[in-house]
Amino acid sequence: MDFSYDARTEELRGRLLAFMDEFVYPAEPVLAAQLADPAREPWTVPAVIGELKAAARARGLWNLFFVDKHGLPGEEGAGLTNLQYAPLAEITGRSVLLAPPALNCAAPDTGNMELLAQFGSEEQKKQWLEPLLAGEIRSAFAMTEPDVASSDATNITTRIERDGDEYVVNGRKWYITGAMNPDCRILIVMGKTDPDAPAHRQQSMILVPRDTPGVTVVRGMTVFGYPDEDHGGHAEILFEDVRVPAGHLIGEEGSGFAIAQARLGPGRIHHCMRAIGVAERALELMCRRVVERVAFGRPLAEQGVVQDWIAEARVRIEQARLLVLKTAWLMDTVGNRGAHTEIQAIKIAVPATVEWILDKAVQAHGAAGVSQDTALAQLWAGNRTLRLADGPDEVHKRSLARRELKRHLG
Amino acid sequence: MDFSYDARTEELRGRLLAFMDEFVYPAEPVLAAQLADPAREPWTVPAVIGELKAAARARGLWNLFFVDKHGLPGEEGAGLTNLQYAPLAEITGRSVLLAPPALNCAAPDTGNMELLAQFGSEEQKKQWLEPLLAGEIRSAFAMTEPDVASSDATNITTRIERDGDEYVVNGRKWYITGAMNPDCRILIVMGKTDPDAPAHRQQSMILVPRDTPGVTVVRGMTVFGYPDEDHGGHAEILFEDVRVPAGHLIGEEGSGFAIAQARLGPGRIHHCMRAIGVAERALELMCRRVVERVAFGRPLAEQGVVQDWIAEARVRIEQARLLVLKTAWLMDTVGNRGAHTEIQAIKIAVPATVEWILDKAVQAHGAAGVSQDTALAQLWAGNRTLRLADGPDEVHKRSLARRELKRHLG
Amino acid sequence: MDFSYDARTEELRGRLLAFMDEFVYPAEPVLAAQLADPAREPWTVPAVIGELKAAARARGLWNLFFVDKHGLPGEEGAGLTNLQYAPLAEITGRSVLLAPPALNCAAPDTGNMELLAQFGSEEQKKQWLEPLLAGEIRSAFAMTEPDVASSDATNITTRIERDGDEYVVNGRKWYITGAMNPDCRILIVMGKTDPDAPAHRQQSMILVPRDTPGVTVVRGMTVFGYPDEDHGGHAEILFEDVRVPAGHLIGEEGSGFAIAQARLGPGRIHHCMRAIGVAERALELMCRRVVERVAFGRPLAEQGVVQDWIAEARVRIEQARLLVLKTAWLMDTVGNRGAHTEIQAIKIAVPATVEWILDKAVQAHGAAGVSQDTALAQLWAGNRTLRLADGPDEVHKRSLARRELKRHLG
Amino acid sequence: MDFSYDARTEELRGRLLAFMDEFVYPAEPVLAAQLADPAREPWTVPAVIGELKAAARARGLWNLFFVDKHGLPGEEGAGLTNLQYAPLAEITGRSVLLAPPALNCAAPDTGNMELLAQFGSEEQKKQWLEPLLAGEIRSAFAMTEPDVASSDATNITTRIERDGDEYVVNGRKWYITGAMNPDCRILIVMGKTDPDAPAHRQQSMILVPRDTPGVTVVRGMTVFGYPDEDHGGHAEILFEDVRVPAGHLIGEEGSGFAIAQARLGPGRIHHCMRAIGVAERALELMCRRVVERVAFGRPLAEQGVVQDWIAEARVRIEQARLLVLKTAWLMDTVGNRGAHTEIQAIKIAVPATVEWILDKAVQAHGAAGVSQDTALAQLWAGNRTLRLADGPDEVHKRSLARRELKRHLG
Repeated sequence: MDFSYDARTEELRGRLLAFMDEFVYPAEPVLAAQLADPAREPWTVPAVIGELKAAARARGLWNLFFVDKHGLPGEEGAGLTNLQYAPLAEITGRSVLLAPPALNCAAPDTGNMELLAQFGSEEQKKQWLEPLLAGEIRSAFAMTEPDVASSDATNITTRIERDGDEYVVNGRKWYITGAMNPDCRILIVMGKTDPDAPAHRQQSMILVPRDTPGVTVVRGMTVFGYPDEDHGGHAEILFEDVRVPAGHLIGEEGSGFAIAQARLGPGRIHHCMRAIGVAERALELMCRRVVERVAFGRPLAEQGVVQDWIAEARVRIEQARLLVLKTAWLMDTVGNRGAHTEIQAIKIAVPATVEWILDKAVQAHGAAGVSQDTALAQLWAGNRTLRLADGPDEVHKRSLARRELKRHLG
Repeated sequence: MDFSYDARTEELRGRLLAFMDEFVYPAEPVLAAQLADPAREPWTVPAVIGELKAAARARGLWNLFFVDKHGLPGEEGAGLTNLQYAPLAEITGRSVLLAPPALNCAAPDTGNMELLAQFGSEEQKKQWLEPLLAGEIRSAFAMTEPDVASSDATNITTRIERDGDEYVVNGRKWYITGAMNPDCRILIVMGKTDPDAPAHRQQSMILVPRDTPGVTVVRGMTVFGYPDEDHGGHAEILFEDVRVPAGHLIGEEGSGFAIAQARLGPGRIHHCMRAIGVAERALELMCRRVVERVAFGRPLAEQGVVQDWIAEARVRIEQARLLVLKTAWLMDTVGNRGAHTEIQAIKIAVPATVEWILDKAVQAHGAAGVSQDTALAQLWAGNRTLRLADGPDEVHKRSLARRELKRHLG
Repeated sequence: MDFSYDARTEELRGRLLAFMDEFVYPAEPVLAAQLADPAREPWTVPAVIGELKAAARARGLWNLFFVDKHGLPGEEGAGLTNLQYAPLAEITGRSVLLAPPALNCAAPDTGNMELLAQFGSEEQKKQWLEPLLAGEIRSAFAMTEPDVASSDATNITTRIERDGDEYVVNGRKWYITGAMNPDCRILIVMGKTDPDAPAHRQQSMILVPRDTPGVTVVRGMTVFGYPDEDHGGHAEILFEDVRVPAGHLIGEEGSGFAIAQARLGPGRIHHCMRAIGVAERALELMCRRVVERVAFGRPLAEQGVVQDWIAEARVRIEQARLLVLKTAWLMDTVGNRGAHTEIQAIKIAVPATVEWILDKAVQAHGAAGVSQDTALAQLWAGNRTLRLADGPDEVHKRSLARRELKRHLG
Repeated sequence: MDFSYDARTEELRGRLLAFMDEFVYPAEPVLAAQLADPAREPWTVPAVIGELKAAARARGLWNLFFVDKHGLPGEEGAGLTNLQYAPLAEITGRSVLLAPPALNCAAPDTGNMELLAQFGSEEQKKQWLEPLLAGEIRSAFAMTEPDVASSDATNITTRIERDGDEYVVNGRKWYITGAMNPDCRILIVMGKTDPDAPAHRQQSMILVPRDTPGVTVVRGMTVFGYPDEDHGGHAEILFEDVRVPAGHLIGEEGSGFAIAQARLGPGRIHHCMRAIGVAERALELMCRRVVERVAFGRPLAEQGVVQDWIAEARVRIEQARLLVLKTAWLMDTVGNRGAHTEIQAIKIAVPATVEWILDKAVQAHGAAGVSQDTALAQLWAGNRTLRLADGPDEVHKRSLARRELKRHLG
């Protein structure tokens, strides 16, 4: 047992921390200004992100997430383990609107790239994975539906029906993150090809270019008032008799559920890694604030309750980070299936921990904390969705509990 | 001891509940549509609110908050006690964006009207209180400043300086609720007239018409992404050499702190009353949702964890409501000063309780809960500010604790 | 609506508070000394309690709990309403080991007396109720069984079988509070007379004198290490072919479940009333402690975290008390059935609130808090059992939630 | 970074787990019976513990805690690192009344042995350390005083005064764990040798044989009703003109504070390691219980709320264990001082986590959970003291917060 990062990780951490200081943090006010510019075309990605991408790529800080290169040629990914990537993802979480896209490590593209690398055909890889790895286009993952509890995949109502050489897609999706962004060219859509098959063989995934006739991007959904323009929002999308070639199906018919499961494990850990970085940033902001702010004759930092928050925040972050790191290590050593309990555990624990810390950081900032003048409120809103995205905590807890019960009872 | 509402309250509750059913709930989607209309002039009040005001006034559901009429002629207020008003305010909280303004019972006007009635000169009453009571104009209360911890009024940096027959105001305020609204004609500004006076005699309040030269409404502040367009937003306002006649000063120089204290008690209880209504609405929405939503083969309503939330919500609401009602009764019977502990207690307890319930209601709604398609996320954001507006919980707890310690040890 | 106590209540509160000051608090160290005396006969009631009983009875502070006198002659009860009794019960909770037995208002006798008054035959009343009302004997209520989840009364396995003019009782009970006490002469035993009847008509209650052949008091159960010698402990009792006359059955065969329900409502509210008093005492002890105790150069009372506890404690007590009082009022005005939700609500809310406060009081006392030198640890242990006695919180929450769901959806 | 135990740890874990199965768990009912035997001499150690000691020693499971052998000859300790010992200590926590003393790894002897090894003179080691390492005698650590907040060592009032070739000790200590046990032969007493020295140079430690004239063991203090007879209880001890040779002073005059600091770090981590084992045992008991217990027609294990507890317990244990392990690793790699933040963090986090889990396990067991028939209530009480022993959480949080603030702002 050894709690130190290996040399490769340390070297990359050093470069990434330098990149954060030199490029990312200074770009935060630039991003805010570009987003606030009334002349901006709605939903377009602010220019500063493109500049950061170029800078990151030039420094080899590119596609670090791409753990398993699946036989792809060398430049497309750093070839890190999950355990090596985790501390880097955490650092990107310290500026979560800028650093992940700058490094081409932002959701949902990361999960989509992994999915295409693992399950895509050669043609699919060439057409969609390559430009994604190059950061030329963006993508979305269309699973959640407004009308059903999508945490239970058997509820999915979108239909994908074979008609000759084509598939025809009909359905309504929402909270399709990134899909408001005009750079988002391709949607991975989950739907049912065979509603009469066994429960977990009914679903398939299919690639639908965003400009296919019949695809209507209805509106942007908001998250506690935030449209999330910086990362392409969250679209409601209507699919009406959308026709794509049969070759756009990913894998085989009926494999959608299995592919979704494969995609979600890494997706969850990426979110959790970044969320630890969010928490560290929030704690830092809180510490700076309470030292500067004076009320009733002394800095807030001298208030016992504020000190209690700070101590609790540190204690909780340390525990959460270690569990994320161990989960990454398990994924590397025994695979995603072997890490199932731990992946669920961090999905349950990390967002709740980070929410608590963000709440206290908001409180320490007073009105500024809920405003557009600090990142805290928006970070809170983004983190809050992690408690329900990709299955609410309650579903994961029930599943984890059942395994625990089984473990004790043979 | 008697826990039943009196006849006058019951009669008004009946009329108000009917008004909610007939006018207010049906107007909710209308409000949403009017707010979403791209052709709308920014910050203007949607037309539906004016229609509701007319309907409410016609039914005698007008200025119910106006507990002490301070010798004003008969029509300006219902002449209710706090205890009679409380259950009515709760009902308005069930549709908190619509019902309070419809009844001319919305913050910050309510507090401002009370303040003018109690401390305003006859001329001030004529010029500002009368049109406020008539619902013709709206107002704002400019106390919070971005640069200091405003919960400690001695921190206020805005200056109000006498210059001949005028006062000159200089300073920067923010989160001035309602002040983005063009119907907001008058600002009550807190500032220091004498920084060398004893700590609680330095401040004064002065009336500043919003269109006075030197007043710049800089921008709308957001609350967790919400601009709160429906009720005039939250302005940042710059005061640069703003000159108003000396007669605009409220009360005498040095009385600002005392006036603020007098204003805040009723303001806090009004917020808490409405917040109970918010919680009831959230619980109702949660109950309806979980019965309809099916996951893993059964309605969410049959999940033990969801039932636990519902029971906890009911138990917490009942306790919180009773404390609010008792506080109202104390204000009526022993005055705001005698109810000081209870006013602080509800300020501490109610927003936290309501936040917990809203959080669970959001969770039960999944993605819809954080979206613009239910009221929950916006209600959450509005309620969250109550934990820090008008003094963060921590300040009130410390103060309450000190009185408790004194009580045992005096 | 009126939050003031009526004149009768105020008058009794005055007398009771004086009695507490004059008799009860001074007797606390006497009780501790008598319990610690190695020469004491195990399980006997310390003499000081008898002395207090005489003093209380002489002052008319006797059987105050006995709300409905059920036509009994005048002296046996104060004839108070639940709402009048509640604030008195709270006061007794401030010295919960001494005051309730002193006033003949201690569980489980109170519930047993109510039960006999309501459902007992004339002969049963004469034989058992009269000496109980006179404080000459004590009683126990034997419902909980070690082998089944007794919150679900259909699980009860004890058998009560008719055999000629007698009933024969067989079964094992535990946590039969008070039954270690040699003054405990009579047990009310719940068992099944007809296992084949509908689920809620299988049970009956029967009177079993503690000295009946076949009754074995096996041992005293402990509560977090406390044998609770002062109030007769908690017995495990074995019933082996215990024969009692048929006339010992209470009510008719099959009425046991209904009688239990009738008994539990008032029992729950009595516990909650006293628990509020426990919380007040704990808060007072905490306040005194933190003012006296100095660490790192200043009294604990100046620590922000300690102040936070004190404020929270006050805020929570106020809410909990009001809900208890409202529940009492509902029981008086609409009956136990009409107060069902509120009775469950206080059963859920009050012990949890009081536990939180006791925990903080313990913490503020350091090692003394967990020791025999303050009452806090024992109070904590006693209060902890309220979260599971008479149905665990989880059962009550589920039931309450179902009613809430029905209310919204009916 | 590597989360797998090394080979030495795995080998020892295997042997220890086998020892638990073969010897320790079967001895649990034996211990209970021996403790309950009315013929037992009070405070003597039950015979079963001696038998387990012999068995453990024969299997090389002896003094595993003794990380740094400080040049002592080979057999006296396993020579493990903290990181190697931690998972073994956790396993002993699964039967915390039996396994730690069986392996000669029980507090307070462990800390006392470390202290003597590190700071004792050769003669002190010979006289006291050797029989302690051999498990022939036991010891106690007398620091806490009833009259002062002992978390602030400058408060200590016990005097240690030089008088010729002797020191004279006067003072009162309490909660001196183990000191009721007649096998406890030696007390390490903290007191002030020079009240006029700088704050952290006033204290010294001295060895006082328990049978020295002037030492009065006044009484056993209880912990929530438990006298903790199995491990020598918690004594109140009066020191009246107790004379010991000058050579009994440990280290030099004025070094007491520094020695205490050195002792507490490892002491805290040992407690936390074992507490993780306690939590695992509680979770296992809870899982077994809820599967067997049926209420309202189905096993408790199918209740959503119970599943929520189980999942939360697992998630919390995993996080807590990792933080303990990392702390052990830091102590090994950068020393106790370098691990200061983490030692405080686990001191704060682990007892609270374990308390939460024990509470839920108690609740799942109903009345049995608070009784003497399961270990849960006693485990809860023992764990509860960890939140205040050796400095209450609040003191550690404040200290940790100050370092965090400094880190961000230095």
